[in-house]
Amino acid sequence: MTKKWVYLFSEVKQAENSVQGDWDKVRGLLGGKGANLADMTRIGVPVPPGFTITTEACNAYLAEGEKFPDGMWEQVMESLRATEAQTGKKFGDPHNPLLVSCRSGAKFSMPGMMDTVLNIGLNDETAKGMVALTGNERFVFDSYRRLIQMFGSVVLNIADEAFEDVLEAYKHEKGAKDDTDLSAEHLKELTEKFKKVVKKEKGFDFPQDPVEQMRLATEAVFKSWNGRRAIDYRRAANIADDLGTAVNIVTMVFGNMGSDSGTGVAFTRNPATGERLLYGDYLLNAQGEDVVAGIRNTKKIQDLGQDLPQAYKEFVDIVNKLEKHYTDMQDVEFTIERGKLWMLQTRNGKRTAKAAIKVAVDMANEGLITKKEAIKRVTPEQVDALLHPQFDSAAKQKAIKEGKLLCTGVNAGPGAAVGQVFFDADTAEHKGKVEKLDVIMVRPFTKPDDVHGMLASKGILTSEGGATSHAAVVARQFGVPCIVGASAAHIDLEKRSMEANSITIKEGEWISIDGTSGEAFVGKLPMTAPSIEEQTDLLVLLKWADEICATPGMRKLPAGWPSTGLQVWANADYPADARRARSFGAVGIGLCRTEHMFFETTRLPIVQRMILAKTSEERVKALDELLPYQRADFDGLFEAMDGYPVIIRLIDPPLHEFLPSEHQLLEEVITMRVKGQTDGLKAKEELLNSVESMHESNPMMGLRGVRLSIVMPEIVEMQVRAIFEAAADCTLRGINAKPEVMIPLTGHVNELKVIQPRLIAIAKEVMAEKKINFGYKFGTMIEIPRACLTAGEIASVAEFFSFGTNDLTQMTFGYSRDDAERSFLVKYIEEGILPRNPFQTIDRDGVGRSMDIAVKDGRSQRNNLEVGICGEHGGDPSSIEFCHIIGNNYVSCSPFRVPVARLAAAQAALKYSEN
Amino acid sequence: MTKKWVYLFSEVKQAENSVQGDWDKVRGLLGGKGANLADMTRIGVPVPPGFTITTEACNAYLAEGEKFPDGMWEQVMESLRATEAQTGKKFGDPHNPLLVSCRSGAKFSMPGMMDTVLNIGLNDETAKGMVALTGNERFVFDSYRRLIQMFGSVVLNIADEAFEDVLEAYKHEKGAKDDTDLSAEHLKELTEKFKKVVKKEKGFDFPQDPVEQMRLATEAVFKSWNGRRAIDYRRAANIADDLGTAVNIVTMVFGNMGSDSGTGVAFTRNPATGERLLYGDYLLNAQGEDVVAGIRNTKKIQDLGQDLPQAYKEFVDIVNKLEKHYTDMQDVEFTIERGKLWMLQTRNGKRTAKAAIKVAVDMANEGLITKKEAIKRVTPEQVDALLHPQFDSAAKQKAIKEGKLLCTGVNAGPGAAVGQVFFDADTAEHKGKVEKLDVIMVRPFTKPDDVHGMLASKGILTSEGGATSHAAVVARQFGVPCIVGASAAHIDLEKRSMEANSITIKEGEWISIDGTSGEAFVGKLPMTAPSIEEQTDLLVLLKWADEICATPGMRKLPAGWPSTGLQVWANADYPADARRARSFGAVGIGLCRTEHMFFETTRLPIVQRMILAKTSEERVKALDELLPYQRADFDGLFEAMDGYPVIIRLIDPPLHEFLPSEHQLLEEVITMRVKGQTDGLKAKEELLNSVESMHESNPMMGLRGVRLSIVMPEIVEMQVRAIFEAAADCTLRGINAKPEVMIPLTGHVNELKVIQPRLIAIAKEVMAEKKINFGYKFGTMIEIPRACLTAGEIASVAEFFSFGTNDLTQMTFGYSRDDAERSFLVKYIEEGILPRNPFQTIDRDGVGRSMDIAVKDGRSQRNNLEVGICGEHGGDPSSIEFCHIIGNNYVSCSPFRVPVARLAAAQAALKYSEN
Repeated sequence: MTKKWVYLFSEVKQAENSVQGDWDKVRGLLGGKGANLADMTRIGVPVPPGFTITTEACNAYLAEGEKFPDGMWEQVMESLRATEAQTGKKFGDPHNPLLVSCRSGAKFSMPGMMDTVLNIGLNDETAKGMVALTGNERFVFDSYRRLIQMFGSVVLNIADEAFEDVLEAYKHEKGAKDDTDLSAEHLKELTEKFKKVVKKEKGFDFPQDPVEQMRLATEAVFKSWNGRRAIDYRRAANIADDLGTAVNIVTMVFGNMGSDSGTGVAFTRNPATGERLLYGDYLLNAQGEDVVAGIRNTKKIQDLGQDLPQAYKEFVDIVNKLEKHYTDMQDVEFTIERGKLWMLQTRNGKRTAKAAIKVAVDMANEGLITKKEAIKRVTPEQVDALLHPQFDSAAKQKAIKEGKLLCTGVNAGPGAAVGQVFFDADTAEHKGKVEKLDVIMVRPFTKPDDVHGMLASKGILTSEGGATSHAAVVARQFGVPCIVGASAAHIDLEKRSMEANSITIKEGEWISIDGTSGEAFVGKLPMTAPSIEEQTDLLVLLKWADEICATPGMRKLPAGWPSTGLQVWANADYPADARRARSFGAVGIGLCRTEHMFFETTRLPIVQRMILAKTSEERVKALDELLPYQRADFDGLFEAMDGYPVIIRLIDPPLHEFLPSEHQLLEEVITMRVKGQTDGLKAKEELLNSVESMHESNPMMGLRGVRLSIVMPEIVEMQVRAIFEAAADCTLRGINAKPEVMIPLTGHVNELKVIQPRLIAIAKEVMAEKKINFGYKFGTMIEIPRACLTAGEIASVAEFFSFGTNDLTQMTFGYSRDDAERSFLVKYIEEGILPRNPFQTIDRDGVGRSMDIAVKDGRSQRNNLEVGICGEHGGDPSSIEFCHIIGNNYVSCSPFRVPVARLAAAQAALKYSEN
Repeated sequence: MTKKWVYLFSEVKQAENSVQGDWDKVRGLLGGKGANLADMTRIGVPVPPGFTITTEACNAYLAEGEKFPDGMWEQVMESLRATEAQTGKKFGDPHNPLLVSCRSGAKFSMPGMMDTVLNIGLNDETAKGMVALTGNERFVFDSYRRLIQMFGSVVLNIADEAFEDVLEAYKHEKGAKDDTDLSAEHLKELTEKFKKVVKKEKGFDFPQDPVEQMRLATEAVFKSWNGRRAIDYRRAANIADDLGTAVNIVTMVFGNMGSDSGTGVAFTRNPATGERLLYGDYLLNAQGEDVVAGIRNTKKIQDLGQDLPQAYKEFVDIVNKLEKHYTDMQDVEFTIERGKLWMLQTRNGKRTAKAAIKVAVDMANEGLITKKEAIKRVTPEQVDALLHPQFDSAAKQKAIKEGKLLCTGVNAGPGAAVGQVFFDADTAEHKGKVEKLDVIMVRPFTKPDDVHGMLASKGILTSEGGATSHAAVVARQFGVPCIVGASAAHIDLEKRSMEANSITIKEGEWISIDGTSGEAFVGKLPMTAPSIEEQTDLLVLLKWADEICATPGMRKLPAGWPSTGLQVWANADYPADARRARSFGAVGIGLCRTEHMFFETTRLPIVQRMILAKTSEERVKALDELLPYQRADFDGLFEAMDGYPVIIRLIDPPLHEFLPSEHQLLEEVITMRVKGQTDGLKAKEELLNSVESMHESNPMMGLRGVRLSIVMPEIVEMQVRAIFEAAADCTLRGINAKPEVMIPLTGHVNELKVIQPRLIAIAKEVMAEKKINFGYKFGTMIEIPRACLTAGEIASVAEFFSFGTNDLTQMTFGYSRDDAERSFLVKYIEEGILPRNPFQTIDRDGVGRSMDIAVKDGRSQRNNLEVGICGEHGGDPSSIEFCHIIGNNYVSCSPFRVPVARLAAAQAALKYSEN
């Protein structure tokens, strides 16, 4: 039996049966749009009859060198006959012609990324028939000329401008300002002109055969799956390349059949704020593309109540029904044809971070979904977006007073961004990715071709388009601050400049955009960290997330391993960071980098004296001076984290990092020598000698971490003394200090065996001096591949592990991070050689496998080994999920990522407890 | 029941029973010397009665804070009573005193490393008794003063000089030249003087109680196990620290009881050449230490036939019996007391590499041992020593004619060495290990304290001592070229210089020593590679080794894995190297480093032009010029290896390695700028810019290997074309070329997926152009930790793996090799933080574990995956054994190591096929 490649919308049950009733697989088969059209048909929502050609057909078509699989076209024609029967119209019949649209629809929505052709079935003959049937010549030829233009551009790859130029010239000739000023006769003439464009561009005539039109359109949609912009989008959105797109053939309904017709798009709740209020735009007497393109000024959806009250009432009932049916905010498209409402699409609506959180919490409170479901509805990226820095409001007021407000527009993507202006996607991408500049991409409007530039930008500003325009949709999805429709901004792409509020901004100059308020400023505005206390919905959601994670039995791991979900700790070097982390919900400090304190201006000269010391006595003397500073830092940390563990990492970097650069010193010394300056030359030369003697070919793998501590134990001895003196002082003040001392860069258990007992002796000495006892741990960072491979031995000494995944990734891949990012890494990620940037997301196959070995071997030696992660991956959701899987106790990340991590930890717990 | 801590020599059966008859364990329990004394007693060899305190007692003593374990001393006293019964003498009885020696004896011989005290039991009373009994006052007081000196130095830690100074002063006072010039009265007086030394140095009297003497001597031997020189020796000889030493209490027999007495040491075959001829020295009227110390001039063992014919005949019979009994060349010590022969020790004799091989092959041919046993008898280090470079004989003749022959001496350790002279062990160690100089250590004689300096030297020269002196023994064991007893050399340790043949050599000046001939030259003599064809015994042994390795079923591994032992391939960059490798027995080239060819002076400018090319065309043009060079190199390689596989690695290093150093350019540019020189400045600046733009913080982990090939594929495309053009040309000439192309630095399978198909396409293109077909493989180096962890995926593309263990070790440990060796690595190895240098011997726990994972996962994906190793470890015996265990097909090493590797491979095969 031939495979079923085509399903009528009314065949939803058959589609379900073919995949054992798995709705996710139905969506995979029919695409999101097709599945929902079929589903809507089933629940009695008015959907124009039609059918879906499956994603499997698309994949087969592409795999077989762009040939329809056997039987597919026959099934298409069969379904077309059925659709003719349902509508009572006939495809290509001049007397009662059926017109259809051909729309792409992948499993995951990729708005505007693939192709659509409307009005298929129109030709010279059927056009005449339509005129006879509708008596509306203007509408028919408006539709016909649209078909030729869309078909020409989408199917025949004729540049849009070829048609637009003709249209503009013709309008000018006829003195028409808008398209609506054109008469039926004008449109008829225009149709002929468009046919000539096709002939001129392609050398053949616009195909008059409706079946040929449909066939070519179907092929065009299939091919668009592998178009540049679709691939770019998928890469950015992490959509697999092998899903394919379905093709939906839908009976045309017309919003442009007069003033009792119209078309629109709407969200069931406000996609920017989450407020429970219909939100959308419509246009009377228009086709759908007019609304989305943002070219004509749309009306608010609520106004439809006045314009077409009956249709509006029906519309409101239907969207309420759809929201309940899909238990999520819906994004719908509709058309009213001579008063009759047709729903053309429904899908879960894209939304801002703020809206996502509010909708999830509201729906859980409304009883529409469970709390667990609410947690799953919000992405960690959305939580992150909400906590992005904002502009300081005082600074904003000042900028406005000083006349620095450039323009305002629609607040399409929340968040603040400061960057240099660039006017096209390629430049924006180059400046952002390669030159690492902060880029604000400025365009009149954006198209799918521009996505690569948008993704490389810190912010986006367009002078045209509305809240549902392309720029707005993409920006919201990827969390890029964005203003659209800033009509006061005059952008001159030729001159590479923009002008607004009498200010001219040239390419490369700085502006600041506030995507939350919709305001753009000239120059750089200062940003402030947002307060989590104001995010009441988020606080509720994170409370729920913490409850999930704290549930015992959440993980089924061996005895002694954690049975709850992950805890979230933070990396903090200073008391202020620790306080912020705690306010963001951290329940421990996973990494305090003690050497950061060495770089402060008051301390660096002492540190340098310590390093350059010729004798151990000199060194100890300098260290004695540093001790009170370190002790004070640690004291503040313990106080801020009262009751929670604080992991302090002993000095890690090579000592030459604290000295002036060799390059600079060399330049100075040579210059002095050549110029014959003797004054101070000797001291400089000596310093240069010292720095040169510390030179390493590969400092990343050199004398640092525990290696340094073994060669020069005085520094860590001072640090451990400072830690325990501070902890003792805190304990005496009634603070519950829980110090954990972390030894970095261990590669062999013997390193710990040499250094750890010496340090424990100091800890005990201090406690004896201060006459107080408190708990503490000594453990190690796991960041050397060998440490993972010999973790069992290492755990015989170390009481805790903390994965330093930055270095572990560097050494497991053999990538020097800075070098790699400058040279091959971007290329590797762009070309898919690496599926993800391993410095952002843990590489599970390689780095992750060795982490898994380390946890298993470590715990087989020490059953209750505390395991965490303190590399940058600790704040990355996929990596957090991986840490959950391998059995970490906690993840530790930067304070601002703590809320993100709390959500991600709960999502991981839910995902793996339910399976 | 109390543990048995003490065994009489006659209790050998009981000792065997306690360890289930395992003779190796008897040796472990009683030490090598004790076990052999007991064993000799059993087979009827005349051994002075005595007993052994076990190594277990030593370990218990050291573990319990230097206290004898319960019951031990009681057992000692009991055994002493039994010994008294056997000898008819009584310990401490003035009328018939028993005297004993107290000798250390560990499982493995550590000559001179631990302590011995002779003549225990002498005191003022027994001395008188002895005089009465023997009528030989001179002998008695000679023995007594020796006891006090040895006891003082060994047991009481009094510096030897304290006694020597007194002796020298006394001899001077009495006008005595040699010790033998001293009369009985003199020695009696000297005994009193030595007692005063003890009193002065220690504050108490020399103990008169014989039991106290024995107890203190026993403790001293136990403690000497943890002495500095014993630890140094164990580290160098890879002897475990937890074996402990036994103590042998042996009835004294005296070689210094007149001219019918004597003492000597001998080998049953010549330890330098392996010739089947008794080899040794003796002295009449002397104690054993006199012979070993090399102070008096000894006589050849054969002369004993004249001096004491009866004893000599008995001696020859006994040593023949011993050689048959132990089926190995024996090193024996004997004493003749008033015509009666006593055997004091037998052990397998240390020997030169040449002797080891000859003895093993001879004994197998004599039917004394099997061929397998012969293979096990020779160490890989011995094979290596035999193939060490020798001085060019013409150059030697020329040097002699020019009067550059400094001196000659005993050829104690074969091999040639060129180095700078240093006169003490500490300096030699520092210059050799830290400053990486080639050191020749020159001393009047060496002592156990000097071992650390000897091991850091390329060669050793002493002016005193014979073929069995300390320097000679150590040098032979560790394969250091050595000349001893070069009496024409006058060494002035104060002035730090030596003088010989009227030439003065100051510290730091160069000399050349030929340890094979015993000649030392001033200056640097050129060396030549030895010819393996002359080493007939070695060739026989290696043939046997190859037969072992080639035996199917030698390894029991899964189906598809190799079932024979390891093959040995070689690393060779040039045809000449390949020819040498083949003559040394290599059956493949495991690594040809193509970039070495880029550094040749004719090519480097082209390479630099290629690197600095601004366009792809310029680059390809330069590459076109390089192609013929590369093709010619490869052609020669294939021809040399006709019939064997040749693995060619594509370009690996970062490109900046081919350009001038940044540091140097910077210096030049700054100097030109400051001096205002504009001529050529711009070009220099541009070059500097290029070099700076290629600068990497950690080049080891930067843009190199396959990464470079992906970013800049033109180079490897040229290389693959050159490889296949050469292979095609060879094939057309009738040569069986088997090219295998190796892609370096793979970390992710996708790297191979991108580059390998492009290269295979070129291979096919060339074969089509040349109208010829031949087999080839494409594979990858496994040198990135992630490659091991994802080897299954990688093997889906790669047809072979070759472990690059140099880089793999660097990244698994996170050690930059050059940096580490300069800073912490030496310390780590010295302090035992690392048990071995992981760059010499594969770290099995870490690096090895990941290699094991890689082989298993790789073969689970590709059953017949060819696996080799081409890092430096490929020539290291322990690493070769590991490669055998994990299932490698071959090891590849430098041509000179091939014979070593062949032996090591056979030894591994024997070791693991027999278990």
